[in-house]
Amino acid sequence: MSNHSPDDHLVLDDFRELERIGATPAGGVHRLSGTPEDRLLREWFRSRAEDQGFEVRVDGIGNMFACREFTPGAPYVLVGSHLDSQPLAGRFDGAYGVLAALHAARRVLSRLAAEGVSPPLNLAVVNWFNEEGARFAPSLMGSSVYAGIYSLEDMLAVTDLDGVSVRDALDSIGYRGSDEPPRAACYAEIHIEQGRILEREGIDIGVVEASWYTQKLDITVNGEQSHTGATAMADRRDALVGAAEAVLAVHDATLDFPEGALVSSIGQHVVEPNSPIVVPRRVHMIADLRSADPEVVRAARAALLDRFAAIGEKRRVEFEVDDFDVREVRRFPEAGVSLAERVIASEGLTSRRLSTMAGHDAVAMNSIVPAVLLFVPSVDGVSHCERESTEDEDMLRGVRALTGVVRELLERTPGPPRSAAR
Amino acid sequence: MSNHSPDDHLVLDDFRELERIGATPAGGVHRLSGTPEDRLLREWFRSRAEDQGFEVRVDGIGNMFACREFTPGAPYVLVGSHLDSQPLAGRFDGAYGVLAALHAARRVLSRLAAEGVSPPLNLAVVNWFNEEGARFAPSLMGSSVYAGIYSLEDMLAVTDLDGVSVRDALDSIGYRGSDEPPRAACYAEIHIEQGRILEREGIDIGVVEASWYTQKLDITVNGEQSHTGATAMADRRDALVGAAEAVLAVHDATLDFPEGALVSSIGQHVVEPNSPIVVPRRVHMIADLRSADPEVVRAARAALLDRFAAIGEKRRVEFEVDDFDVREVRRFPEAGVSLAERVIASEGLTSRRLSTMAGHDAVAMNSIVPAVLLFVPSVDGVSHCERESTEDEDMLRGVRALTGVVRELLERTPGPPRSAAR
Repeated sequence: MSNHSPDDHLVLDDFRELERIGATPAGGVHRLSGTPEDRLLREWFRSRAEDQGFEVRVDGIGNMFACREFTPGAPYVLVGSHLDSQPLAGRFDGAYGVLAALHAARRVLSRLAAEGVSPPLNLAVVNWFNEEGARFAPSLMGSSVYAGIYSLEDMLAVTDLDGVSVRDALDSIGYRGSDEPPRAACYAEIHIEQGRILEREGIDIGVVEASWYTQKLDITVNGEQSHTGATAMADRRDALVGAAEAVLAVHDATLDFPEGALVSSIGQHVVEPNSPIVVPRRVHMIADLRSADPEVVRAARAALLDRFAAIGEKRRVEFEVDDFDVREVRRFPEAGVSLAERVIASEGLTSRRLSTMAGHDAVAMNSIVPAVLLFVPSVDGVSHCERESTEDEDMLRGVRALTGVVRELLERTPGPPRSAAR
Repeated sequence: MSNHSPDDHLVLDDFRELERIGATPAGGVHRLSGTPEDRLLREWFRSRAEDQGFEVRVDGIGNMFACREFTPGAPYVLVGSHLDSQPLAGRFDGAYGVLAALHAARRVLSRLAAEGVSPPLNLAVVNWFNEEGARFAPSLMGSSVYAGIYSLEDMLAVTDLDGVSVRDALDSIGYRGSDEPPRAACYAEIHIEQGRILEREGIDIGVVEASWYTQKLDITVNGEQSHTGATAMADRRDALVGAAEAVLAVHDATLDFPEGALVSSIGQHVVEPNSPIVVPRRVHMIADLRSADPEVVRAARAALLDRFAAIGEKRRVEFEVDDFDVREVRRFPEAGVSLAERVIASEGLTSRRLSTMAGHDAVAMNSIVPAVLLFVPSVDGVSHCERESTEDEDMLRGVRALTGVVRELLERTPGPPRSAAR
């Protein structure tokens, strides 16, 4: 790989430095929002941005914007992603997008300087707060507050499993800011695919044309606490037994639909009191349902509610179920998709259109401004785990594509704002 | 209830005071081992014991012995129970036994003084460390170390779910002692039944003649962490789905046997990484199997291991299963059972023989010295929950019975030590 240009080496060396923050022994990273690792990431971001002459602003939910003004009063092309990670996660998810945005911005500034051009729009690289929703639910928190989907006060009050609030976590690392965030004209993001399509088809870059319909269910199963030894089986109301049936029901919900039409699972599942010789009193779970077709999710949800009622009756436990984090299918603007395709082709790279099953900050931003979302290939399609990987060459191709997209976006006249998201 | 004797009032008033330590809003208590609540309980115990002229010793695992020597060099009649509780538990489990032991000891001392008698054996009231095993597994920890069933060093190294060791927890409350514990001649304990037999039959006191065969299984389910959104269902290896099938298998294991022959459940169940949008990598669970008949537990265990293997294959996850905390059926000595029956009858109370499904410190002690275990009725048979209850009159009858038993035991010639437990 010694045939890389000096500029490409800058990108790769920078990634090698970034991946050391919160590194795990198995080759991944562990960088939960609002932790000391998050602070280190932010200091890295600030230092890189200031070195390039950007002014860093931090807003009330801890989003960081590295701003460069060309035209006073004009809105900004925002480009970025997130530096937080899932627990024991991969090095690429989010972090690659922020790194690529910083380097794309650097290259664009350098081209503009060389051309002697001052564009009509301004430029900001963004590191969104808590995209993952791992420590604090919901995910896409920072970009959704920016987009007006969630209120700042509601999100600051969200607590983790230990009862620590977003407000206190941000204060503890010194990153609950008070700066006015830059006004966006449009948004661009590059991310790893987290799927296998690009790798399987040998395509360089994916251009996302729509996001899946997703929703979560907040499920509480209430039984009665009792002694595992002294309580007859017939006298028990075991919340975990009810929950176990619900876990299987959520998993099997996909079988009612064509293969690939629905994904569903339970990722968070907490048992109370969680003592070896106590029959569980309560289980709290979060289920995640996603499909390209909203009707599929709605049908699965309805079937699950019926199923939970039946399980509750059979197991003598009570289910409480609340919908949250419902995200409609959103199409990315055709103008942005074709702009990206054109730029990618002009770089001599191949592309194809994709949908995203996963949520991204670009999905939240796409609810208020035209957004462009690009994917680079993921090795084996794996993500949210330590063996998540993307090849160096794919990272570099992505930076080239993103640089071209940002350069084009800076020259565009801002369109009217899009309607607010639900 | 104003027709109680002044001495009975002392017992009930003392219980009202004790139940305020670690009290919960719903009328229960929350007193995990090695916590600030545990320290308050221990200070209460020390103060009560010293007021009665006992010398308090604390051994290396935090067991507290309130000692009164009559015959220098002679072994001790130990009488007691435990002050720790399950999370959000009842006020009676363990605490009643320690309270009853303190008052029985007080009454015995007063009778001996009135009679001008000095018995051949010595007397100690004991508060065992961590009977519940809620924060630190296994249960019966303090009495089992005393009985030589577990080694002190192994138990000091046990950690809770936050990684805090028994050693550090005891040090943090100042109760990792260095005193030599008193040598036991025999042991007596009174406890709430935690079942419905005494209440249903209208019997005052249960005399335990045997303990059930019990064992635990430490179960780890290993899958692969991935993204709940971006990972196709067919590519997932969801540890929680495998665990859910195992939870149901453990519950349904009882159906292979006659009703009441086996109880089984999973009380502890921890999901990793436990994030709403991550397919779980690992689940760690503890299953608890109990029966009066060891063959029933062995058959259930064998069937479960087969079942886990099948689940693992079907769900593409791996099970690791280890046996631990295996407790053989132990008969309590007939001499102690008949002594208790005689004393109870002489107090004008009724009794019947019972087995204990639940573990008790008396079960551990019964492996090294003759032990007597008495039960008082539990309202509705419920235990390990906040609505656990025992009537005042039943508590007072229990103190009378225990007082008589302790008085008799003090006069007995110590027999040879029993063989050590497995």
